[in-house]
Amino acid sequence: MRRISLLGASGSIGTQTIDVINTHQEEFALVGLSVGRNIGYLREVLANHQPKIVSVQNKEDAQTLAMEYPKTHFTYGSEGLIEVATEETADVLVNAVIGSVGLEPTLQAIEAGKVIALANKETLVTAGHLVMNAAREKGVPVLPIDSEHSAIYQCLNGENPKDVERLVITASGGSFRDLNRSQLANVTVEDALNHPNWSMGSKITIDSATMMNKGLEVIEAHWLFDLPYQKIDCLLHKESIIHSMVEFHDGSVMAQLGTPDMRVPIQYALTYPKRLSLPQTKRLRLEEYQTLHFKQMDFERYHALQLAYEAGKIGGTMTTVLNAANEVAVAQFLNKQISFLQIEEVIEKAMNRHNVINEPTLEQIQEVDVETRRYVDSLN
Amino acid sequence: MRRISLLGASGSIGTQTIDVINTHQEEFALVGLSVGRNIGYLREVLANHQPKIVSVQNKEDAQTLAMEYPKTHFTYGSEGLIEVATEETADVLVNAVIGSVGLEPTLQAIEAGKVIALANKETLVTAGHLVMNAAREKGVPVLPIDSEHSAIYQCLNGENPKDVERLVITASGGSFRDLNRSQLANVTVEDALNHPNWSMGSKITIDSATMMNKGLEVIEAHWLFDLPYQKIDCLLHKESIIHSMVEFHDGSVMAQLGTPDMRVPIQYALTYPKRLSLPQTKRLRLEEYQTLHFKQMDFERYHALQLAYEAGKIGGTMTTVLNAANEVAVAQFLNKQISFLQIEEVIEKAMNRHNVINEPTLEQIQEVDVETRRYVDSLN
Repeated sequence: MRRISLLGASGSIGTQTIDVINTHQEEFALVGLSVGRNIGYLREVLANHQPKIVSVQNKEDAQTLAMEYPKTHFTYGSEGLIEVATEETADVLVNAVIGSVGLEPTLQAIEAGKVIALANKETLVTAGHLVMNAAREKGVPVLPIDSEHSAIYQCLNGENPKDVERLVITASGGSFRDLNRSQLANVTVEDALNHPNWSMGSKITIDSATMMNKGLEVIEAHWLFDLPYQKIDCLLHKESIIHSMVEFHDGSVMAQLGTPDMRVPIQYALTYPKRLSLPQTKRLRLEEYQTLHFKQMDFERYHALQLAYEAGKIGGTMTTVLNAANEVAVAQFLNKQISFLQIEEVIEKAMNRHNVINEPTLEQIQEVDVETRRYVDSLN
Repeated sequence: MRRISLLGASGSIGTQTIDVINTHQEEFALVGLSVGRNIGYLREVLANHQPKIVSVQNKEDAQTLAMEYPKTHFTYGSEGLIEVATEETADVLVNAVIGSVGLEPTLQAIEAGKVIALANKETLVTAGHLVMNAAREKGVPVLPIDSEHSAIYQCLNGENPKDVERLVITASGGSFRDLNRSQLANVTVEDALNHPNWSMGSKITIDSATMMNKGLEVIEAHWLFDLPYQKIDCLLHKESIIHSMVEFHDGSVMAQLGTPDMRVPIQYALTYPKRLSLPQTKRLRLEEYQTLHFKQMDFERYHALQLAYEAGKIGGTMTTVLNAANEVAVAQFLNKQISFLQIEEVIEKAMNRHNVINEPTLEQIQEVDVETRRYVDSLN
C-alpha cells in the first residue's frame, strides 16, 4: 500500500491521478491533497476518500470545510501546500500544481524523505540543481509524470545510464504545427487551445503550441537524467505515439509507445519499477495508424525551443527567467493582452537583460522569479 | 573477458560475430570455431586468432590444417561441432549454423553449462521443450541472436515477464511484399534473393519472402519467452526499423529500434545485460526516414506464417515437420526444382500426413526430421 499526497488534485493530472488511485484501491491510499478554488470537485473526492489533510486556496473555504468533515485537517495557501507535501503518513508526493509555486513543497517533501512524483515542470526548470542535489543526498527518487520523461525512464529501466548516447524527446508540434511563422502572427487563443493529440490544461496547451513545453522538458531531462544538452535532442513526431526514445552507445534505440493517456505515466510513477495493470487504457495498434511521421526539429520555426536550450546551457538563474517570463507571457496571451508571437519576444527580452547568478539559492531563485514577473508585467 | 565458441563462423552471422570480437579484443576471445568448406575464410580468421579448437566439414581439410597450425586442435563433421560447442575453456556458445544440425551441439553445450547465444532458429523450433527445460535445469541463459528476439529481450530488460500482455514481432514482408498471391506464381530464385532491407544468407532470405522466417520466429518466441501463441502477434512494418515490441498490462509498449545491422543483436547477446559501444553501426535518425509504415499481417497472403502458427499450437513433433519440410522445400526452390508457391504446398502436405508425437525425445525428433526430409524429397 502506497500512501499518496497529491498537490493540484483538481487539475488535469490531479484528476487522472485520483482515477488511478480509484482503480487500484488495494494498492494506493490518498492521505493528503490540495485543490485551489474547485471546492465542488474536492467534495466529490471527499465522498470516496478520507485524507488526513486537505489544503485549499482560501482560509474561508478551509474553515467551512473543517466543520463539514471533522476527521480531516483543513489548511490553506502556500503554507498549506507544504503541509500536504510533508504529511507524515505519506510515502509519495505527487506534485501536479502548475507554476513555480510547486518548488518549495517539493524541496520540503524531499527533506521529509518522500518519493517525488513530479508533474510540475517548473520545479526542475527553476531549481534543478537544488532539487536533484537534495534528492541525491536523501536517497529519494524523483520520478517524472509526463509522457516524455516517463518514456525515457521506462527506456532506461535495467540499463546503465553511462551507456546513454542521446535522448530523443518527441514533439507533436502543437496546435499550429502546420502554420509557418508569418501565419502565426494572427492566431487566436481559441485556435491555440485546440491541441490535436492531448487534452490538457490551457497553460500547457499554449506551451505546446510555442514549443516552450518541449524546451522545459529538455531542461527537466537535463536534470532528471544528468545529461548535457548536447545529448538531448527533440524530434517532430506529429502522432505523439512514440513518447520519447533513448539511444545507447551500441546504436540500439529503446522507445516507449502508447495511445495518449496520462494515466499510464502517472501510474508508472506511482508503482516504479513495477507495473500494475490498467485495463481502461486504449491499447496501441500501430496497424490502425498505418503511418508514423518524423521530421527534424526546426529551431527557427520554434524559436521558444531555441531560447530554452540557450537558457539551459547558460544555466544558473537563466532558466528561472525563462520560466517566469513564459508564465506571465502565456497568461497575457490567454488574457488577449499580447499576440502569440509576442510570447517568445517577451521571454527573449527578459533573458537579454538578466545578469545570471550561478548556483543560486532558493531565495535568489525566488527573487529572480518575482523580479522577472514584475518586469514582464511592466511591458504590457 | 568472455571466451567464445562459434559454430558457423563463415556464414553471415558468423562473420559478423567475428567482427564484433575483433572490435572488442579486450572483452572477447575466440577459443573455438567451426566452418564448413570455406577454408580460405578460416585461414583469415586464424591469422588474427589462436583458437584452441577448430572444426571443419571434411576430415581431409582437418588433417591438412593440423599440420599448418600445430597449436590448434582440428576436428570435423557433426562430432566436431559438438566438440567446439563444449570446448572446456569457452563461456559462451554462439550457435550460428543453419538448419537442424545446430540442435545437438546446443543441447550438449547447455549440459556443459555454457551460456547459449542462439542464431540457429531450428534449435528452438524443433526442440524448444528440450532446450528450454535443460537450460532451466542448468540455470543457463539462452540469448537470441536475431533482431526481433533481441529487441524483445531488450524490451524485457528490467521488467517483470508476468506483466507482458503481448509480443509484437515486426515483419518487413520480404522480397515480394508488393506482390499478391497470383503474382507470386512465377517469381524466380533471383527475385527472391533480392531482399529490400537486410543482406542475409539465401535460406533465410527465402524464408523471409515466404514469411516462414517470421513463423519460425513466432515459435522461437513462444519458447524463449514462455508465452502462449495468442500473445504473440506479427505486424507488417516494411522499413524494419522497429525490430519488435512488447506490450505490457498497463498499456505501455516498449520497442527497440535501429538501422539494419546484425552486429547490434550479436554484441548484445555476448554482453547481456551490459552494452558495449559499437561506433561502427550507423545511428538511427528517424528524421531521415520521415515515415514508418505498419499494416496488419495478412495470413492468406502469407500462408506459410499461418502454417507455422498451426504447427506451433499443435506442438510436439509438428514443428519439426514444419521446419524439416521447409528446409528441403527451400533447397528445392533454390535448385529450381519447385516453384515459390510450392514451398508452402509441400510443407502443408508434410504436416497433413504427420501423426504428432507429444513431448518427443531427441531421438524421436531426429527420426521425424529424417522421415520428413525423405518424404519431401520423394515428392519431386
